[in-house]
Amino acid sequence: MNIFEKYESNVRSYCRSFPDIFHRAKGSIIYAESGEEYIDFFAGAGALNYGHNHDYIKQKVISYLDADGIAHGLDMYTSAKEKFIAKFNEVILSTKNLDYRIQFCGPTGTNAVEAALKLARKVKKRPGIFSFMGAYHGMTLGSLSITGNTEIRAGAIGTLNNVTFMPYPYGFMESFDTIKYIESVLNDVNSGIEKPSAIIFETVQAEGGVVVASIEWMQRLRKLCDENDILLICDDIQVGCGRTGSFFSFERAGIVPDIVILSKSISGYGFPMSVLLIKPELDIWEPGEHNGTFRGNQLAFVGATAALEYRESSNLEQDVKVKELFLQNFLYQKILPIKESIAIRGIGMIWGIDLANCGSNSLTKNITMRCFEKGLIVERAGRNDTVIKLLPPLTIEMSTLKKGCSIMEAAFNECL
Amino acid sequence: MNIFEKYESNVRSYCRSFPDIFHRAKGSIIYAESGEEYIDFFAGAGALNYGHNHDYIKQKVISYLDADGIAHGLDMYTSAKEKFIAKFNEVILSTKNLDYRIQFCGPTGTNAVEAALKLARKVKKRPGIFSFMGAYHGMTLGSLSITGNTEIRAGAIGTLNNVTFMPYPYGFMESFDTIKYIESVLNDVNSGIEKPSAIIFETVQAEGGVVVASIEWMQRLRKLCDENDILLICDDIQVGCGRTGSFFSFERAGIVPDIVILSKSISGYGFPMSVLLIKPELDIWEPGEHNGTFRGNQLAFVGATAALEYRESSNLEQDVKVKELFLQNFLYQKILPIKESIAIRGIGMIWGIDLANCGSNSLTKNITMRCFEKGLIVERAGRNDTVIKLLPPLTIEMSTLKKGCSIMEAAFNECL
Amino acid sequence: MNIFEKYESNVRSYCRSFPDIFHRAKGSIIYAESGEEYIDFFAGAGALNYGHNHDYIKQKVISYLDADGIAHGLDMYTSAKEKFIAKFNEVILSTKNLDYRIQFCGPTGTNAVEAALKLARKVKKRPGIFSFMGAYHGMTLGSLSITGNTEIRAGAIGTLNNVTFMPYPYGFMESFDTIKYIESVLNDVNSGIEKPSAIIFETVQAEGGVVVASIEWMQRLRKLCDENDILLICDDIQVGCGRTGSFFSFERAGIVPDIVILSKSISGYGFPMSVLLIKPELDIWEPGEHNGTFRGNQLAFVGATAALEYRESSNLEQDVKVKELFLQNFLYQKILPIKESIAIRGIGMIWGIDLANCGSNSLTKNITMRCFEKGLIVERAGRNDTVIKLLPPLTIEMSTLKKGCSIMEAAFNECL
Amino acid sequence: MNIFEKYESNVRSYCRSFPDIFHRAKGSIIYAESGEEYIDFFAGAGALNYGHNHDYIKQKVISYLDADGIAHGLDMYTSAKEKFIAKFNEVILSTKNLDYRIQFCGPTGTNAVEAALKLARKVKKRPGIFSFMGAYHGMTLGSLSITGNTEIRAGAIGTLNNVTFMPYPYGFMESFDTIKYIESVLNDVNSGIEKPSAIIFETVQAEGGVVVASIEWMQRLRKLCDENDILLICDDIQVGCGRTGSFFSFERAGIVPDIVILSKSISGYGFPMSVLLIKPELDIWEPGEHNGTFRGNQLAFVGATAALEYRESSNLEQDVKVKELFLQNFLYQKILPIKESIAIRGIGMIWGIDLANCGSNSLTKNITMRCFEKGLIVERAGRNDTVIKLLPPLTIEMSTLKKGCSIMEAAFNECL
Repeated sequence: MNIFEKYESNVRSYCRSFPDIFHRAKGSIIYAESGEEYIDFFAGAGALNYGHNHDYIKQKVISYLDADGIAHGLDMYTSAKEKFIAKFNEVILSTKNLDYRIQFCGPTGTNAVEAALKLARKVKKRPGIFSFMGAYHGMTLGSLSITGNTEIRAGAIGTLNNVTFMPYPYGFMESFDTIKYIESVLNDVNSGIEKPSAIIFETVQAEGGVVVASIEWMQRLRKLCDENDILLICDDIQVGCGRTGSFFSFERAGIVPDIVILSKSISGYGFPMSVLLIKPELDIWEPGEHNGTFRGNQLAFVGATAALEYRESSNLEQDVKVKELFLQNFLYQKILPIKESIAIRGIGMIWGIDLANCGSNSLTKNITMRCFEKGLIVERAGRNDTVIKLLPPLTIEMSTLKKGCSIMEAAFNECL
Repeated sequence: MNIFEKYESNVRSYCRSFPDIFHRAKGSIIYAESGEEYIDFFAGAGALNYGHNHDYIKQKVISYLDADGIAHGLDMYTSAKEKFIAKFNEVILSTKNLDYRIQFCGPTGTNAVEAALKLARKVKKRPGIFSFMGAYHGMTLGSLSITGNTEIRAGAIGTLNNVTFMPYPYGFMESFDTIKYIESVLNDVNSGIEKPSAIIFETVQAEGGVVVASIEWMQRLRKLCDENDILLICDDIQVGCGRTGSFFSFERAGIVPDIVILSKSISGYGFPMSVLLIKPELDIWEPGEHNGTFRGNQLAFVGATAALEYRESSNLEQDVKVKELFLQNFLYQKILPIKESIAIRGIGMIWGIDLANCGSNSLTKNITMRCFEKGLIVERAGRNDTVIKLLPPLTIEMSTLKKGCSIMEAAFNECL
Repeated sequence: MNIFEKYESNVRSYCRSFPDIFHRAKGSIIYAESGEEYIDFFAGAGALNYGHNHDYIKQKVISYLDADGIAHGLDMYTSAKEKFIAKFNEVILSTKNLDYRIQFCGPTGTNAVEAALKLARKVKKRPGIFSFMGAYHGMTLGSLSITGNTEIRAGAIGTLNNVTFMPYPYGFMESFDTIKYIESVLNDVNSGIEKPSAIIFETVQAEGGVVVASIEWMQRLRKLCDENDILLICDDIQVGCGRTGSFFSFERAGIVPDIVILSKSISGYGFPMSVLLIKPELDIWEPGEHNGTFRGNQLAFVGATAALEYRESSNLEQDVKVKELFLQNFLYQKILPIKESIAIRGIGMIWGIDLANCGSNSLTKNITMRCFEKGLIVERAGRNDTVIKLLPPLTIEMSTLKKGCSIMEAAFNECL
Repeated sequence: MNIFEKYESNVRSYCRSFPDIFHRAKGSIIYAESGEEYIDFFAGAGALNYGHNHDYIKQKVISYLDADGIAHGLDMYTSAKEKFIAKFNEVILSTKNLDYRIQFCGPTGTNAVEAALKLARKVKKRPGIFSFMGAYHGMTLGSLSITGNTEIRAGAIGTLNNVTFMPYPYGFMESFDTIKYIESVLNDVNSGIEKPSAIIFETVQAEGGVVVASIEWMQRLRKLCDENDILLICDDIQVGCGRTGSFFSFERAGIVPDIVILSKSISGYGFPMSVLLIKPELDIWEPGEHNGTFRGNQLAFVGATAALEYRESSNLEQDVKVKELFLQNFLYQKILPIKESIAIRGIGMIWGIDLANCGSNSLTKNITMRCFEKGLIVERAGRNDTVIKLLPPLTIEMSTLKKGCSIMEAAFNECL
């Protein structure tokens, strides 16, 4: 690993948690040069819902490359993009009666978040945005301005503005009515807080520590936005694309956000891609007003179309339900009892084991390191990384899922 | 094209200039579903210096996919990344005696620009950044704050700050000493303009209208930064990777920026990738302080390594010189004489034909449309898009280059 | 009044509530050119705690002028300033065991607020300030940024920043623990809200609608600041100088703010003056770092010294207690019973009658207009001006106070 | 002076240059407790154009106090204010064919500057303001944001925004066309600098080092604002009220600003007062949208009216011409020849002796200290305080003016 330590910037991070050199991957298994193999409960931080190198998608991608399909297309019309749009509309939007215009952003989640903020400000002509404590939306300046982690924000020294952080129902903030709080602020002419263009939210704060918003809370948030002429933006980057069961994570609340942000698993193969879904009446962009060189990453379109085809032919949503139940049972029966102060939170196939009240902040680090030694990749999240976040591929085989859980259980018992 | 107009956001832009559906590409030719083929003088806005689907790179990429090489690796250690770092160091950095740490950013140029600004502010602890009038650095909020286009900036309504725009030697600003201007501002305790953390610049303002900075200007800028304890950041996204001849565009001035930003052509195949080069003493990032899901786009690493191997085996730098001379001759002998008020600017294989003083602003649009009809893709840039920007692949065959130029000459003669 | 309507800016406001031309005043009575006389329950918005043209102070001021005492002294050493400093220290600071450095700011409250913010940021090197919903601190940009009224803030279009508004125990915000809220925000590394340099507060939000903070709340706020290395700034402009009984309004909580702001009644005669009290260890100003042409308003120093002498010779604090009791009794016994939805709040000689829940927002306007017609000047405050604010001079004779209250009672009965 | 050093904040400044305790003043002479007397070439930084304690004004002020004229009137209609408005209109506005609405701001220059910025932003709905390098407009946050001194700005750490500093014709910036520079920025769609609501300027940058704008420059600035729909604000605080000869300093250029700011000498007696003059069509303030407790400083109105009466009865404008000539001759004949590198700048009765190129930065300090020892109060200004600024009362007797000049000459000869 000499070459990384010598030449790669100090900013590198996951490699520190998982110190091996990986070269091959398939499904839910990653193989290292050393010969070791690891079960993957991290899934590219949610970018690999279909597992690594899914065979169906892989064949489509290789064929495309082989035929010299255009690889880089800016935002010109291409066959690959056309197919994706058609398939996305057919399989996702129209089946859910959703009417959105699709914007292809620079192929990272943060880029789509930036586009969403810019569009909201352009539509409503108000500089303010409301975000939530605990939120994670990305690292570029606009996304950072709405991201809660104050340590990461520090780098911007005074350059983040026009954002107000509202309480998300978590910790002490759960002890009162957070929607009523926002309402009070908006209704109080002397609150000092201007009406925002938009409220941006995650249905599950994944990086925030797997905090799941209730259906009622989301419905009241949608209502509050309607009543106050505020746009509602759902950042569905980490928990969209089926992670919570349904394709969009907000479906369980029966609400329709004004703008939806997708990225991570949308391309199906871990290829960089991001998408903004915009209610037609809000699509007031001037041509090229938000652009980017790689917004036409054709291989990602090919992958994304194949992934949607795979969804059609499979029973993924049902499958997630089964695994959700398994995970829930495992966590409540095997992990929760280990120590009183453990908290379990989650939905679908994203689960958090909160050890914040278990004494040492290094406990989660010890456990995930122990897991890694035993052949399981699993990451931490939440305040001070005190939550262990389970994020296996949706397509993981039941046997592998069980094996990963056993490793985790063993690690817990060894460390606690 | 119905499906695009119906479902894709109004923000789409290049497709409006080049209204055809493309499906295949090779070298300097793009093929449309309609059967039409086009010579490409745009090269993915500089992302395709090696042409479309370069065969050597293609084979490496397909082999990698075929062998289930890990496709998405976050910032974990992977074999593909290791090989890229080693090769980049061997072929580029060490041969030029450059000592930089490499940061892999979210795979878009704008993301690397954001990282550069954040790092500069962290190092120097000053909120300010100096950018230049005419600059283009990207669309996310931090990059947008240092981008000159006021129409595009308008979307951020009041949220862009801590940036001061300095005159770039262009237009009226060329009539006085712009470096002395910056110096005067910095030395004047009453200038109202705080010393910045960094000055970010392009050696050629490509989007600004192909404005080429002189060697002396760059050397004085470097000296000014040294004398005032300011970091110098070179955004080499569009004109790096060999576009001006040498790999880095600043080499012709013999200067070494403190931070260098690469993207666009670095992956060799149009795959999303971006890289920040940081002087070792500035690499004070905390682990994960700037992150992003797709910063480990492994296919891009494979492509980038293959592209460097191709560079080694070819004579690209020499080749560019030859084509530079051809383009220069063509432009000065065939285009310049067409009308008195035409201006020609350029270097290496990026050239601009400035028609700002030729009367109508729609002239460039007419010409590029005419070119497209005749089978040539070429784009506009500069203030109000009054400059035609020639940006063919570096690897274009001489015959194709000539053919493209002939088309352009014809279009000029028809429109003027 | 023709001349005012013709030449004075539309921004004029109190003259609209009290449409007469005033020329003379004494004690608690204002005389109009028309011959009408009015009992003054407004007292220059708190600037006339000693009543109009207090005889003792008046004689001192005239003598000073007569002897050609220096009238304008910038911040040079003058005899008038020397006497004020000595007397202020003797009568106020040393008797209360307070150790503060005195800064003479530009002679308006808002200027001292600006100085306080600037100093706090300089000391703690953090851009952020916490203010409270409902707060009023002034109209210049820094003070406006921490003032809650969103209608007034609108003029600054996007230029107010680095301020976070926290809930003040009022309305819905009273239903949960607001200090715990602030604590949670500070302790949550993912709250998105950076630790501020200072928290600025009013012990009674006068403009906010006469909302009185509890002793416990203030003590916990002081403790929270101590534990988190945050400066506590008390804006005592409107309710300092004896308004709540003690000279400083925070004395009742037994706390010592790090910075205290005085203005309004400090000069004793309505002359412009403001003062910043700074804990010695925080007095890190460079000479002239915050300046202003009129910070040496010598007549104000003469008035202020005389006012302190008057305090010494009188029994003002005791006197206020007596009148507080009278006002409290009057309001609870005569006004409260008029309508169920009336709320009464107050302390010392600042009291609010809250009619927000009495139906029409124009009710308070009708009542104060009716009062004026009957010879009583009294103003509105609070959200949408739904609170009638009683602010008589502290020195008002008991008979005049009673007469004013009778007028008010009559007006209430006529309007409700 | 013990008491000042012990209790007054470290921020005190002029007292350090003039270390004596002053108690009395008349005309152009200040008397110290020590018995020393000083000729005043500083005139309250421009607040005492009529000298100290002018007898005519004094009698009016004492009479007013004596008769219990209302001293503090918020912004209610008062007789004193009525008289001022009428007289100001009669003597100043109507004789010059100027049509302005009058706004009485909080009684400091900086407060009026803040009001001007807020109004301009409200009118034009653009956040930006252009100010000039070298400008001084005050210390509150809005005024500070447009003030050039970077040392004083530092206290605001990152909170100053939406302001762009343009070159003022001084130093290197004089070597090119600064109006053309601004024009180029405004016309360049890629300049990165948004069109501002207003440009604020001083006809003479007094604090900037007595830099006098040319008539042509001001006329072109006015034209540029007209052509670009930008408001022109003239900050006439220091050099208005007759300092340059005419009442307004911009009269010599024959231009009419959209907004004019007056303060300092307007009250005639050094009393705090400030006034905003607004073109009627721009007076879109809501009632109370910019307020302040002391905006009705009645004594200042009385003084200001008396000062205007004095102007009418005297020959002040003519008088200033005579003294301007004397000062000019003195400076060019007696001071300039002392050393080659001395520069002289000025107009009317504001003159600067620039010693920036005379070697030591402490030279001006030595000279002004020497002057003080010899009985002359004179201050420094400009970059690093390298300019000696002559600002005697306009009413100074010729003999005293000569005596002051002799002292200065002697001090120069002793120090150089």
